[in-house]
Amino acid sequence: MSKLLFILVLTIGIVSGKYKYETKWFTVPLDHFSFQRNETFQIRYLVNSDYWDNGTGPIFFYTGNEGQIEVFAQNTGFMWEIAPEFKAKIVFAEHRYYGQSMPFGNKSLENENIGYLTAAQALADYADLIDYLQGDKVEPRYPVIAFGGSYGGMLAAYIRIKYPHLVNGAIAASAPIHMYPGMVPCEVYDRIVTSSFRIANEECVTNIRNSWSTLRTFAKSQNNSDWLYKNWNLCHPLKNSSDVQELVDYLQSMYESLAMVNYPFESNFLLPLPAQPVRVVCQYLNETLKDQKLIEGIGKVLKIYANYTGKTSCVNYKNGDSYENLDASGWDYQACTEMVMPMCTTGTDDMFEPNPWNFTQFAEDCHKKYNVQPRPQGARVEYGGARLQAASNIVFSNGLLDPWAGGGILNSISNTITAVLIIDAAHHLDLMPSSPYDPASVKMARNIHKQNIEKWIRQFREERSKQ
Amino acid sequence: MSKLLFILVLTIGIVSGKYKYETKWFTVPLDHFSFQRNETFQIRYLVNSDYWDNGTGPIFFYTGNEGQIEVFAQNTGFMWEIAPEFKAKIVFAEHRYYGQSMPFGNKSLENENIGYLTAAQALADYADLIDYLQGDKVEPRYPVIAFGGSYGGMLAAYIRIKYPHLVNGAIAASAPIHMYPGMVPCEVYDRIVTSSFRIANEECVTNIRNSWSTLRTFAKSQNNSDWLYKNWNLCHPLKNSSDVQELVDYLQSMYESLAMVNYPFESNFLLPLPAQPVRVVCQYLNETLKDQKLIEGIGKVLKIYANYTGKTSCVNYKNGDSYENLDASGWDYQACTEMVMPMCTTGTDDMFEPNPWNFTQFAEDCHKKYNVQPRPQGARVEYGGARLQAASNIVFSNGLLDPWAGGGILNSISNTITAVLIIDAAHHLDLMPSSPYDPASVKMARNIHKQNIEKWIRQFREERSKQ
Repeated sequence: MSKLLFILVLTIGIVSGKYKYETKWFTVPLDHFSFQRNETFQIRYLVNSDYWDNGTGPIFFYTGNEGQIEVFAQNTGFMWEIAPEFKAKIVFAEHRYYGQSMPFGNKSLENENIGYLTAAQALADYADLIDYLQGDKVEPRYPVIAFGGSYGGMLAAYIRIKYPHLVNGAIAASAPIHMYPGMVPCEVYDRIVTSSFRIANEECVTNIRNSWSTLRTFAKSQNNSDWLYKNWNLCHPLKNSSDVQELVDYLQSMYESLAMVNYPFESNFLLPLPAQPVRVVCQYLNETLKDQKLIEGIGKVLKIYANYTGKTSCVNYKNGDSYENLDASGWDYQACTEMVMPMCTTGTDDMFEPNPWNFTQFAEDCHKKYNVQPRPQGARVEYGGARLQAASNIVFSNGLLDPWAGGGILNSISNTITAVLIIDAAHHLDLMPSSPYDPASVKMARNIHKQNIEKWIRQFREERSKQ
Repeated sequence: MSKLLFILVLTIGIVSGKYKYETKWFTVPLDHFSFQRNETFQIRYLVNSDYWDNGTGPIFFYTGNEGQIEVFAQNTGFMWEIAPEFKAKIVFAEHRYYGQSMPFGNKSLENENIGYLTAAQALADYADLIDYLQGDKVEPRYPVIAFGGSYGGMLAAYIRIKYPHLVNGAIAASAPIHMYPGMVPCEVYDRIVTSSFRIANEECVTNIRNSWSTLRTFAKSQNNSDWLYKNWNLCHPLKNSSDVQELVDYLQSMYESLAMVNYPFESNFLLPLPAQPVRVVCQYLNETLKDQKLIEGIGKVLKIYANYTGKTSCVNYKNGDSYENLDASGWDYQACTEMVMPMCTTGTDDMFEPNPWNFTQFAEDCHKKYNVQPRPQGARVEYGGARLQAASNIVFSNGLLDPWAGGGILNSISNTITAVLIIDAAHHLDLMPSSPYDPASVKMARNIHKQNIEKWIRQFREERSKQ
């Protein structure tokens, strides 16, 4: 129902298990902000202290997002790669209601139990965990740097905003903290998706834009529908216009995902993709195509996206949002409550069919599904929206190929709330393991991150020595 | 059960109703941080816009504490007196579960309903209200200055710490934000009570310290107990040692209260008191007294305290904590949950009988009474304890005669987190209406407050003009 959000992030598989850690558990209150219910439960966190100077070394703390935490541990190579030189302890904390951090076991996502799934509660879990890692001391010993990408990047920023006494600085990568109602135009996301395809080639955009009506017209005949079912290797036949709509939605989501993970290296995601996937798929759409030829071109794109390895049995267009390993079913609930992020397409600034944002409909759907009323202004009031002048020590990094950059902070707000733009990077490339294919811009961004982390650690030590 | 805290503040009667306002209501969610329950209710707030420049004038926002809000509106004369020159709108917001801001009507304080009484929820109420007063705008128009005294001062500081995007600065008067476990010695409060009496005269302290054993010995005989019942004008006879203990507790609480409200002017509280009440009562204890003479001296003190106007029919020592107008029954619950403030007496640094702080016993009592487990570290983790280096634009003012100053911030933390010490003032005298009897120190403190408020407003306007 609500638009697929950071979901691709989650589909980043646990590539190879190349980073090693201990798995631990930490007890947190179900509800940090009231005493109406006094249950506790355990969240999971992963720790590596191999490089840690446990006298004074920093704690690198990943504020886990919507998914099982191993995925983020294995894909946030940046933290692992810089830990030795900082003599840092590495901690990845799992977000409540995801992975194995379930307050009510396998009933956690049921409507009567899901209500404590909020960013504020997750941040308070992390705050308690950080305090515990410091030894519950009034005066903490170790500087703490928060890291996060995407929603995890929002949480990294938010934990520094809300708990600056516990977290000394934050690297918030690809964090769309402006993506709330009234803050950026709802069409910004798909406008950037379209730009990313335009960079590959202009004709690609034109073809995709034309493909929607072509496909709808094409699919009207039963023969053609059967042809699509067979030649596009769909898991389900196209029986009616509702099936066609689902296929259209799946295709749009495909282009959005390709733009988001348009990395310079082959990536072994749940849906494995070639390096620079947007450029690769646009090869099939690089001259003006019409009718059957256009349909065939889109079919080739689909094949790359859905079956790059050749091992996928069929394209499950009816269930595009729920990848097997996804484990992010809580996100839809968060989008329906506090993480309300309006999305729309205009058909003019982007290559999609026009589809306005309809909050009333959205709220009704949320109410029907979860019996909640969204609080569209909640996150802005709680975390500050665009007004971060009083915060400090946060880097907001954004790859300009990443559609989520549309909701990101692209200009420095002060000397201590700074923006890092990475011109040829997609979604939080700067946090990923380094690769020989990395563009210079992302190497530079990582150096800037390191300089900031050094500065924040120095600042912590100076303040501490004054006391 | 838990030690009487800010309660005297509340007994400040609604002197004369001299300040005028409109009463309004604002709808808030019962629970800001979860979606488990989706009820809403209304909090009350008082508004005066007589002096307001509604184009750009600031909003002076009192973060209401544990009591009905009129009390704070009528006693925070400082806000009213400076509003005209700042062209400010004045708002006093009532704390949930106090006064008329009851989520469950007259059942709000029952155990099954009281769980949403927390500082975090109250702050979120105020945040929503401030956002509403700005017109729900992404870019606020009006600078907002928070004011508060005692627990309200803690909330004023906390709202700037947690919501700096909504509140531009805070005057936190007599806010004991260090009064949490492990942060200051538990005996600090009564040590300052004792100092205040020592300033009046040393003999007064010696007499009070000696009075406890004298009283306990004296009351052992039935004749003497009857004598006390009659001559001290007690509402209840002293039938056993438990009654004597209650009388002792009442007397200790009396000295503590006298120190807290040791103002330079006659004050018409629920318990009306003369100017400089500590000096007045110490007149009766200014030479070494023993036995019957000491008992008579304490009796005179009791008469001043409990019956200054001569209208009190008897001294209700068995119900000392529940003044008629008090309306602060929620505070005991807050002290049992997140506002855990250890208090003890040593008998050496103070003039009381030794009485250690026993967290285990305290927690058991809380559990028995409210079915909750205190979170002694909760407030420190949530609000930062002593680590406020990353916060800004808060003035912590403390009168050095005020026992709560023992948990206050007495040294500036940075250029923008500053301490104002008021050498001869009791509990948040700086927020009270000005009086011809005000010492120079409190006048100076008020001038410093005004300069800071001016600076914060200027800063808001500069930031705004940059955008």
